[in-house]
Amino acid sequence: MEGNKYVYLFEEGSADLKNLLGGKGANLAEMTNIGLTVPPGMIITTEACNAFYEKNLQFPPGMEEQVQDKLKVLENETGKKFGDPKAPLLVSVRSGAPISMPGMMDTVLNLGLNDETVQGLAAQSNDERFAMDCYRRFLNMFGDVVLGIEHQKFEDYLQRKKNQKNYQFDYELSASDWKEVIENYKQLIEKETGKPFPQDPEEQLFKAIYAVFNSWNIDRAIVYRRVNKIPDDLGTAVNIVAMVYGNLGDDCGTGVAFTRDPSTGEKNLYGEYLTNAQGEDVVAGIRTPRHISSLKDEMPDVYEQFVNTCHLLEEHYRDVQDIEFTIERGKLYLLQTRKGKRTAQAALKIAVDMVKEGLISKEKALNMVEPSHLDNLLHRRIDPNAELDIAAKGLPASPGAASGQIIFNADEAEKKAQEGQKVILVRTETTPDDIHGIVASQGVLTSRGGMTSHAAVVARGMGKPCVCGCEALQINYEKETFLVEDRQFNKGDILSVDGGTGHVIVGEVPMLEPELSDEFQQLLEWADATRKLGIRANADTPQDAAKSRELGAEGIGLCRTEHMFMGNDRLPIVQEMILARSEEKRKEALDKLLPMQEEDFYGILKAMSGFPVTIRFLDPPLHEFLPDKEELLVEITELRITNGDKDKLAEKEDLLKQVRQLTEFNPMLGHRGCRLGITYPEICNMQARAIFQATARLVKEGYDVLPEVEIPLIGDINELSFVRKDVIEIADKVIEESGVKFNYMIGTMIEVPRATLLSGEIAKEAEFFSFGTNDLTQTTFGFSRDDAEAKFLHEYIDKKILAENPFIVLDRDGVGRLMEVSVQESRKTNPDLLIGICGEHGGEPNSIEFCHLVGLNYVSCSPFRVPIARLSAAQAKINN
Amino acid sequence: MEGNKYVYLFEEGSADLKNLLGGKGANLAEMTNIGLTVPPGMIITTEACNAFYEKNLQFPPGMEEQVQDKLKVLENETGKKFGDPKAPLLVSVRSGAPISMPGMMDTVLNLGLNDETVQGLAAQSNDERFAMDCYRRFLNMFGDVVLGIEHQKFEDYLQRKKNQKNYQFDYELSASDWKEVIENYKQLIEKETGKPFPQDPEEQLFKAIYAVFNSWNIDRAIVYRRVNKIPDDLGTAVNIVAMVYGNLGDDCGTGVAFTRDPSTGEKNLYGEYLTNAQGEDVVAGIRTPRHISSLKDEMPDVYEQFVNTCHLLEEHYRDVQDIEFTIERGKLYLLQTRKGKRTAQAALKIAVDMVKEGLISKEKALNMVEPSHLDNLLHRRIDPNAELDIAAKGLPASPGAASGQIIFNADEAEKKAQEGQKVILVRTETTPDDIHGIVASQGVLTSRGGMTSHAAVVARGMGKPCVCGCEALQINYEKETFLVEDRQFNKGDILSVDGGTGHVIVGEVPMLEPELSDEFQQLLEWADATRKLGIRANADTPQDAAKSRELGAEGIGLCRTEHMFMGNDRLPIVQEMILARSEEKRKEALDKLLPMQEEDFYGILKAMSGFPVTIRFLDPPLHEFLPDKEELLVEITELRITNGDKDKLAEKEDLLKQVRQLTEFNPMLGHRGCRLGITYPEICNMQARAIFQATARLVKEGYDVLPEVEIPLIGDINELSFVRKDVIEIADKVIEESGVKFNYMIGTMIEVPRATLLSGEIAKEAEFFSFGTNDLTQTTFGFSRDDAEAKFLHEYIDKKILAENPFIVLDRDGVGRLMEVSVQESRKTNPDLLIGICGEHGGEPNSIEFCHLVGLNYVSCSPFRVPIARLSAAQAKINN
Repeated sequence: MEGNKYVYLFEEGSADLKNLLGGKGANLAEMTNIGLTVPPGMIITTEACNAFYEKNLQFPPGMEEQVQDKLKVLENETGKKFGDPKAPLLVSVRSGAPISMPGMMDTVLNLGLNDETVQGLAAQSNDERFAMDCYRRFLNMFGDVVLGIEHQKFEDYLQRKKNQKNYQFDYELSASDWKEVIENYKQLIEKETGKPFPQDPEEQLFKAIYAVFNSWNIDRAIVYRRVNKIPDDLGTAVNIVAMVYGNLGDDCGTGVAFTRDPSTGEKNLYGEYLTNAQGEDVVAGIRTPRHISSLKDEMPDVYEQFVNTCHLLEEHYRDVQDIEFTIERGKLYLLQTRKGKRTAQAALKIAVDMVKEGLISKEKALNMVEPSHLDNLLHRRIDPNAELDIAAKGLPASPGAASGQIIFNADEAEKKAQEGQKVILVRTETTPDDIHGIVASQGVLTSRGGMTSHAAVVARGMGKPCVCGCEALQINYEKETFLVEDRQFNKGDILSVDGGTGHVIVGEVPMLEPELSDEFQQLLEWADATRKLGIRANADTPQDAAKSRELGAEGIGLCRTEHMFMGNDRLPIVQEMILARSEEKRKEALDKLLPMQEEDFYGILKAMSGFPVTIRFLDPPLHEFLPDKEELLVEITELRITNGDKDKLAEKEDLLKQVRQLTEFNPMLGHRGCRLGITYPEICNMQARAIFQATARLVKEGYDVLPEVEIPLIGDINELSFVRKDVIEIADKVIEESGVKFNYMIGTMIEVPRATLLSGEIAKEAEFFSFGTNDLTQTTFGFSRDDAEAKFLHEYIDKKILAENPFIVLDRDGVGRLMEVSVQESRKTNPDLLIGICGEHGGEPNSIEFCHLVGLNYVSCSPFRVPIARLSAAQAKINN
Repeated sequence: MEGNKYVYLFEEGSADLKNLLGGKGANLAEMTNIGLTVPPGMIITTEACNAFYEKNLQFPPGMEEQVQDKLKVLENETGKKFGDPKAPLLVSVRSGAPISMPGMMDTVLNLGLNDETVQGLAAQSNDERFAMDCYRRFLNMFGDVVLGIEHQKFEDYLQRKKNQKNYQFDYELSASDWKEVIENYKQLIEKETGKPFPQDPEEQLFKAIYAVFNSWNIDRAIVYRRVNKIPDDLGTAVNIVAMVYGNLGDDCGTGVAFTRDPSTGEKNLYGEYLTNAQGEDVVAGIRTPRHISSLKDEMPDVYEQFVNTCHLLEEHYRDVQDIEFTIERGKLYLLQTRKGKRTAQAALKIAVDMVKEGLISKEKALNMVEPSHLDNLLHRRIDPNAELDIAAKGLPASPGAASGQIIFNADEAEKKAQEGQKVILVRTETTPDDIHGIVASQGVLTSRGGMTSHAAVVARGMGKPCVCGCEALQINYEKETFLVEDRQFNKGDILSVDGGTGHVIVGEVPMLEPELSDEFQQLLEWADATRKLGIRANADTPQDAAKSRELGAEGIGLCRTEHMFMGNDRLPIVQEMILARSEEKRKEALDKLLPMQEEDFYGILKAMSGFPVTIRFLDPPLHEFLPDKEELLVEITELRITNGDKDKLAEKEDLLKQVRQLTEFNPMLGHRGCRLGITYPEICNMQARAIFQATARLVKEGYDVLPEVEIPLIGDINELSFVRKDVIEIADKVIEESGVKFNYMIGTMIEVPRATLLSGEIAKEAEFFSFGTNDLTQTTFGFSRDDAEAKFLHEYIDKKILAENPFIVLDRDGVGRLMEVSVQESRKTNPDLLIGICGEHGGEPNSIEFCHLVGLNYVSCSPFRVPIARLSAAQAKINN
């Protein structure tokens, strides 16, 4: 072990050595080596950290000596000396893991200060108060992060002092005030640790290094790594850098800048600086920083040097850089460079511009845009400069923003909309009964339900803003009001919702309209040329289908037929069908539905001519189409107590009985999907006939129609065989009756664990599989999504039990593993099987990458997520 | 291919060749070879059947010639000739697969009859009417099973003839009447097939062989095989046997007999016979058969021969035989032998007796008893000779029978029971609220819910009879009556339920008390010495624990704590705890529950001293402990309409609001199990403290206590870590406070698919796993068990979509595969992990075999299923 190199000077490192030197250190080394001025510094490697743990929290042999050696180099380069009372070398000590990790020790500045060296700093800075302030900050930081004394205890001392002196702000304290505080802090440290504050700078330094290493394995860091799947043996590096000061005179300064405008993407330097100041001054906000371009006038040489530096770094890193710098006595020091964060709009422009400038490849450009950011560009949003009166915050369930009158029921929302008024539909939760109300509204607000509740799913499908699960709302339907704490909102009041942030805002707010830039189109074209995964949309209407095509979908991966059963003209017939007491009566009702369904399918298949359309047979449990049990119960009780109309009472009682019979304990796991088709084959048969009759008509009219009949919720090959037999028979009959030949496929959704495990069998009778990962997530976890999101899932995320909401980001370990089994075993028995995904995950970037990895043929998502999916699929291809 | 041997004479075969010769043929061959008299016959092999399918429904080359050759041998042996008009050889043709398969072609008798040979039969039998009757039967059988003409068409002709002649019964038809029928039948055959009835006996024979082969692949046979997992390439054999006749005079006869009494197991011949008769006569019931012992007087030589034959067969097969025989002119022919079906009681006696007689080994004896039959012996049952007025039939949910007054609510049931009256609790379904009523009742009857509904599970646990899901019952709680069709039953009426058959019987019925015979104890002792799996019981009370020990359980595999929350003294405090609006208030309520829970655990741990007890933390969703939402809604509506007490209304409205907040869409997948422990750690903490305080007291008192703390519904290691940390901390505290050291384990239930998939991780922090296969089946299939059993599962079984109810017999392909993954991966990271099962499957023989195969350490089941589990576990060991 002895002889290992544990410490690197900046000039010995490079950006490639990120795993060894950590992200921050590697970039400092890189800058040093391309000739930029960085304060002298060294990096203790992640290997040293790992060795430290192997040796039971002891520094590995040789490490300390290496630090001391390199310190000599720093002293030579700076002309200062560690612990020297006249010209003390002061350093910052920072952790720096290969992957940035919140929770670890961050920074100790001004290390090397003690009762003597603080005098040297005072002399150098010509500012005793500043030196003392540095010292007390150092004592606090060191006490807190290195010695483990609660920060609050330092604060308490300081507060007491301020009260004593009748000060309100820190800057009111004089140098001698700070000296008193310093004495107090040193006493506190001695009291808490049983030892005096270490005056020896070397002791300070090694204690700080120890603390950085140690912070790698504190509870919250371990949990963070476990949750984010970061290996425990990465380790952290330690950066030790000579302090430089931007506040030693007017030829000094400090600032931060981006190489391009991070909000628009324009190719202009963007940033601000302060002369004669340190970083803290910018934060404190006492003086107003100036725009970076003003530096040209104040220090033209430095400015020119800085501009060149920016060009150099951008060309070197081939990306926008976010740079921290300090000017000490006319000399420009770079303290950090990293990838610049940017808005969605800027990201697009920068990526496309850089390709045009020849700086980067198209692949790199595709990787530079965060797919989820595209979402913002597709929806209206609130003017970021507007002042908002935010009444409450719910879940950001469907992006975009809208304003309108508060309306509490779907029928009234529809009526108001027909009168040309804008409404926001407010419900505790929505059901399929409310669809027409959602259609009519500008946006939806619910007090219950999660990111994948009915309201959320439907609103996303329609591209409408939605805020869900806003539990602060106490809705009173009877009075048509809701309370948020003691604020009352009435029907007709104007309200705004921001489905991107979850904000519920009082009154109307100024909006910005979405604009799809040329860069947007350009980048997605490149994405299409790159990706391997097909992209389809989930759409139930010809309108949605058209929107999907416009946004680039290559087919419909899920057309739900249940929404079609909800129309005002249909529902009574659907209820007639469900409540039929004989198969004959049921068939009569179904015969009435047949021409309506045929028109539905005609419309959607026509809109998607040339592209496949997966049509799913009726899926939800039948009681969803019946009147609400509780409302019936109240009506009946009222009729009973008031001795009301006897016939009506009997009728309602009968209806209640039937509703009760259809009510289930756990409808999600109940009589739905193909189970309906097995107990009531006539329902599936009607739907099959409607699909094929529409197909035959369209083929006759010259359209290129590709229906895919999807039988949901299969868990056993026998279920599929049972329904499939009838579907084939009906197709044959329709072909015979119409004299038109057409193609079609029959397949199934894979959405219960058993279906994944028996995929090898099931694939023998399926031409396609589509993963219904919403339900598969529910069954794999045993989570009812509505209940989980409302009741405990947020606590799971808060307590880091799960890293992500598995209904949003596909759970690779559980759900994903089942998908892998399914794909592998089904392709073995049916190599031509077409496999897709139509759960909400089909529009989520991380999940799309998994779909690519596991070898799916396509993903299908809400129309408005199609652009995200196109980009994500391209990234998945590039990165794997 | 030519040269293959496709046809075996009986003398060429043996019982070992069952796969080649089918079950029936192999036994006939075996009997022939041990010297018994069997009519001459041949067997066409299953290989010939498979070759037939390979050659696209053509007989394999050489097969026909081999049949013809063997036919010559039969002619020689019988002295008759196929097609000879004087002494025709007639044969029976039967299918005979290696595994008996309903749905396949069964039998054609008297093949070889035609217009000429029928005269020979008439001469031989001296009975023209009999010969003609044989011929018309042959025409009908041949027409139906070989030529595929609907049986009903023959019946219709016959009925018309009888109407014409004014006959009521077949035996009224004379020889000449039958001749007319024969002419009609031949015309029918010609009309239906377009060809005359084949008079050529060889043509008849090969057509019959073709039909047997063909019946292997008809739809219902294929479905049967798929569902029962019988390989399609087993094929069926064909048995061709010379006809013998028991009705050619008084020295003839026919009969069936068992070598021992199949209802008691006594070692006496048991059976009946008729002289001068054929098998059909026994069935027709025109003459009364006589007991087999009478044969001694009528034909002493034949009887002696038969008795010897029985001994020989029993010794040869080492099991009770069920024998068919015919005596033709004083000669005893054996037509079939097979294992004799027997009652549970008989099975036990036979098995133990045969070991004592030195006939069989203990292993063989253990295999001779069907474990599920033991259940009958543990419960009271209805006298099989009683006449019953069966009003309705539900699901046989918990075995045993009981009579009592009809009572509709749990409180009243409890009151009546305290008054010394016997009651049957009748509910639409039961909830944990009804426990005290179930305890107080003789039996339970529900109109909803399946074999694993609340009522069923609880009743089985208590060993009480229960009939569930009896949908014919229309219960009216208000009037306290129920209707079955138009029969009305009132409160107080006497009713009986038979939980073994599902019968609901009017009035009191005579019962037989259970008796555990010496043979029962003996066999189970042998089982214990043989089995590898441990056997535990699911028990929640000291009483159940004691019962479990009595029946041989070696520990408690599941002690549910929720039932303990339901007592009348507890429920108000539990509700206080749930409805608490602050953590503080919740803790106050929990503090009151702590000493009660401690007493619960004290009792059960003490009863199981020396054995481990797995105690599961509170599992069900909290709203189960709250008042019913619908009842509240009715009360509120009433108060509102009648302008009732304002304070009460407000209070009820507030309660309803809280109940609503806790209500879930799918409680099975909701806020329950460890999810409660994560959002309300104080609940788990109280339970942990109660367990450890009880443990410390018992250890101090000198008991050997082994608590296993079980954290339910884990799906991720982080959930387990979170709860486990607190449990360990509390154990340490209790050890410190009490000064008593004790041992305990912490583990989890594996009951959602994700837990099985992540078992390798989860096992790192668990000392035991227990498969909760009820919930695992629900989530793997996506079946809510109550909904599925009531709504569609019966249709799945009827339509052969599933072979078995997966809540009763563990689904090896889906659920079982997940269990295998879990066992393998968990043992890799934790080789010492103790793994059991506590779902209902733990008491089901097929599932227990799977648990043995997959390497579990123990199974746990209801106390009354412990004997079944002991025997099943022994069988699993012996057979694998």
